[in-house]
Amino acid sequence: MAQLTIREASDLLREKKLSPVELTRDCLERIDSLNPTLNAFITIMHESAMAEAGQAEDEIQQGKWRGPLHGIPIGLKDLIDTAGVRTTCGSALFADRIPTEDAEVVTRLRRAGAVIVGKQNLQEFAYGGTSASSHFGPVSNPWDVGRIAGGSSGGSAAAVAAGMCFGAIGTDTGGSVREPAAFCGVVGLKPTYGRVSTRGVFPLSWSLDHVGPLCRSVADSALMLEVLAGYDELDPTSVNWKAEEYSSALDLKNKLRIGVVRHPFLDDLDSDIDQAIKEALRVAEEFAIDVVEVELPDLPTAVQAPEAFAVHAEYFTKSPEFYRPWLLERLRQAKAIDTVSYVRDRHELDRVRKSITRVFSDVDLILTPTTPGPPITIDEALRMSVPPPPGEVWLRNTRPFNVYGLPAISIPCGFTQAGLPIGLQIAGPHFEEGKVLAFAHAFEQATNWHKRLPAI
Amino acid sequence: MAQLTIREASDLLREKKLSPVELTRDCLERIDSLNPTLNAFITIMHESAMAEAGQAEDEIQQGKWRGPLHGIPIGLKDLIDTAGVRTTCGSALFADRIPTEDAEVVTRLRRAGAVIVGKQNLQEFAYGGTSASSHFGPVSNPWDVGRIAGGSSGGSAAAVAAGMCFGAIGTDTGGSVREPAAFCGVVGLKPTYGRVSTRGVFPLSWSLDHVGPLCRSVADSALMLEVLAGYDELDPTSVNWKAEEYSSALDLKNKLRIGVVRHPFLDDLDSDIDQAIKEALRVAEEFAIDVVEVELPDLPTAVQAPEAFAVHAEYFTKSPEFYRPWLLERLRQAKAIDTVSYVRDRHELDRVRKSITRVFSDVDLILTPTTPGPPITIDEALRMSVPPPPGEVWLRNTRPFNVYGLPAISIPCGFTQAGLPIGLQIAGPHFEEGKVLAFAHAFEQATNWHKRLPAI
Repeated sequence: MAQLTIREASDLLREKKLSPVELTRDCLERIDSLNPTLNAFITIMHESAMAEAGQAEDEIQQGKWRGPLHGIPIGLKDLIDTAGVRTTCGSALFADRIPTEDAEVVTRLRRAGAVIVGKQNLQEFAYGGTSASSHFGPVSNPWDVGRIAGGSSGGSAAAVAAGMCFGAIGTDTGGSVREPAAFCGVVGLKPTYGRVSTRGVFPLSWSLDHVGPLCRSVADSALMLEVLAGYDELDPTSVNWKAEEYSSALDLKNKLRIGVVRHPFLDDLDSDIDQAIKEALRVAEEFAIDVVEVELPDLPTAVQAPEAFAVHAEYFTKSPEFYRPWLLERLRQAKAIDTVSYVRDRHELDRVRKSITRVFSDVDLILTPTTPGPPITIDEALRMSVPPPPGEVWLRNTRPFNVYGLPAISIPCGFTQAGLPIGLQIAGPHFEEGKVLAFAHAFEQATNWHKRLPAI
Repeated sequence: MAQLTIREASDLLREKKLSPVELTRDCLERIDSLNPTLNAFITIMHESAMAEAGQAEDEIQQGKWRGPLHGIPIGLKDLIDTAGVRTTCGSALFADRIPTEDAEVVTRLRRAGAVIVGKQNLQEFAYGGTSASSHFGPVSNPWDVGRIAGGSSGGSAAAVAAGMCFGAIGTDTGGSVREPAAFCGVVGLKPTYGRVSTRGVFPLSWSLDHVGPLCRSVADSALMLEVLAGYDELDPTSVNWKAEEYSSALDLKNKLRIGVVRHPFLDDLDSDIDQAIKEALRVAEEFAIDVVEVELPDLPTAVQAPEAFAVHAEYFTKSPEFYRPWLLERLRQAKAIDTVSYVRDRHELDRVRKSITRVFSDVDLILTPTTPGPPITIDEALRMSVPPPPGEVWLRNTRPFNVYGLPAISIPCGFTQAGLPIGLQIAGPHFEEGKVLAFAHAFEQATNWHKRLPAI
């Protein structure tokens, strides 16, 4: 039952062949049994989840059907505020922080009838791609528990892969949804910048932060996005752009023009990944008019770090002892970036985010490997020195799409010889999540990599 | 002839009762005769203007009518690039700088058949509200040549007031179109942020810069905006929002709800201005459902200076001797603002620019005095010390609307006892220039202050 997709479980719930209470209890049991190994959850919400499941059951019995997330167990990365439930950001500083209001995306999930099962472990304050450095200990990869789940939404990706919940909400500032999705063999979607509200989500970098779903299929990602997407006038980064019924438009109507980008996306790939991507592009060609090389504009590099430092400046000065050494050093480096560099790169970000649209006069979508290599071990991650910006190589292929603000998804596209999942990244024009999802769905149907599950 | 409005001159041109060559020659003669006194122009474009006028004449004779700017003499603030014509920014540094391309607004003016008569004097690099500190000497106010014309678009406002051209294009980062318009008794419009392209216009502060017209009537401002407004995909700040036919929608269809804001807008006003504004509000009431007090959100203060410094950092370091002392000191102060302050205030600007829209659930427009006092003397301006940010008191009432990104116009609303013009500022919701112009037009029709002209 734990390995059903949201769509499958939802059909059973609607037809009353499955009870939300039963489904949620099953998930919670699986969380209780697997969490000591995976450390994917910081807070497990047994009581409230069972109460919500009970309410969903009552409503469904009474014929009040809220939609495809009704009664579905969902997890939240633990920097997404939940009223009355501590939200730690994976940090000692916030170990006892209890918000008084739900984040906007949580409000939307609740309105859709989702059951919130818990708060998921992450890289401390979301600043890094491993989820090894958390006040609550490292997250393990369900495919190899000695390896990282990726990050910063590592707990969310691991939980979805291991069947501890049916979907999760993560955040992605440089790849933090897509990279752990790739490492854990699930589907991770970063929507267009401004598409999903970030209000009530602890910021890493305002100009680059995105909120997005992690699921076990593309269709599930479409269902989740339908609930998450929409204008929030209280979020300064939210854009007033009509959301679509993504889940009912998953069929790819026409073949598309596919773009690939050599540098840096296809450079210095691990050989397993190189192989898998070559094969993935062959599959993609079935749905493509042609596959052509395109070039993308250079990236400003001095945006994320100064914004992260601005968020932490007071805490960092007053209570450095609450920061883990890795983040402390990272913030120290961030502090050193001068005003002129940030001002210029912040303006350059606006320029690049606009000029990127011209690429899509030649192609409909851009395909890249999600990461250049497979997940490293947790030990390696813990010994890792602070990288100079732009830093971590495994975010190299994802980070540009945060700068461009383009929607991008990572879907499973193979396995390394050692049995670790490999991700294919598909990016499209601003606000064309529908096109990205439809192509990803076609690829998924043609390959079924997403049906292979970890033996945990 | 020099004191006709664009609309009046345009009607005569279209009916072939007036020749563009005649009109342009008349303007150039007036420039030649008045410029030694007013110093409104840095470069007078005799030859090219006469050639353009000749071309307009040929086209109109052949029945090719480009619209209401066809054959109309227009001036440009001298930080707006003109291909082959030096564009100095009022600075010694750029005294010989000759751009190779027209700014987007110049391209638009040329397409509309306008005749460019010259490049207008301004505060050095547009950083200040007096136009007293320019490498090319101070601009004089046509109503009292010992007084400042205001700035930074001082030459443009003085030239329009004195009949040296029929309209001009200025820039407004904290009031630099509206404040000189008020001081010189003309109409100055700052459109919505992103409404008019800033490409090819030397930046002061990317997040606050606006390009807008100065004219002798509201109807002329509408004609100019119609030509200037439109999406520019190469300008990172340009917004893709449909422009309207402003000039054919000038009639106010309904009475509007008017908001006034006590602090700071109505505080510490010069008594003449206080009097004029009270009278202006009485006139405005004729077109109002009611006049109510509203509050506006606080402003971030650390955006303009760091952006200005980022533009000048290399020049400032390499060639400080090319800067006038006032700007040098201002940039020195700007340099000292730390990254955290800018990062936070840049984000706060996004928040405030979005949250301001809620004010317009209570009112349709906001009315304020454009400036708290009349123009000071040029001597006083030259002795003025560098103000601490947010600085110059005469930009106090205009600056907030740059932060909010709202469209705002200054129109004549009276005179001081000493005979200096007074401006009324009218601001409206984002992209509702039409509403602002219609109300301003109704006020103008009811008062006719704009028909009084300087005796120069």
